[in-house]
Amino acid sequence: MTQPLDNIHHLALQVENIEQSLRWYASNFSCEILFQDESWALLKFGNISLALVLPSQHPSHFAVIRENVESYGLPKKHRDGTSSVYIKDPSGNNIEMLELSALP
Amino acid sequence: MTQPLDNIHHLALQVENIEQSLRWYASNFSCEILFQDESWALLKFGNISLALVLPSQHPSHFAVIRENVESYGLPKKHRDGTSSVYIKDPSGNNIEMLELSALP
Repeated sequence: MTQPLDNIHHLALQVENIEQSLRWYASNFSCEILFQDESWALLKFGNISLALVLPSQHPSHFAVIRENVESYGLPKKHRDGTSSVYIKDPSGNNIEMLELSALP
Repeated sequence: MTQPLDNIHHLALQVENIEQSLRWYASNFSCEILFQDESWALLKFGNISLALVLPSQHPSHFAVIRENVESYGLPKKHRDGTSSVYIKDPSGNNIEMLELSALP
């Protein structure tokens, strides 16, 4: 049986100003605003989401949906029930191993 | 009528060594190698492709599938028939406006 390919949940870009960047993305692309506050925003594209984050809060990264993320380190639990572990590729690119449903 | 959301064709990451990085990605993720040589590689994930590029050749970027990319600047024609224009968001993040089929 062929193993299904991993999906990339979101790409996160560092921006200087969330509101200004959000306006720019919303006016230049056909995308949907899923969330916004002063510290981050989430945009839905057709096949993936795009997060806009502040350099003081998150590194630029992309998030891969995985199970058993604890095998990559100590997971950080998020308020929405997801949990994640950040790892780096051999060149230092940041990857979030993201578990969407962390059942007990 | 609701306008369809734009799709992100690929995410491109700068890596120091294509072959070493390709081995790392292929062993850590369920993904398919679509192309590789010494200067770049392309990996297929479930919902998006991931390009590994050398800093001397391409910036880190993501590519959005668009029509009429010439409205963003002078398109660069690629050997596979696609054409693209690079733009920057207000914070300097690189975005490739990618036209998959450039019909005459």
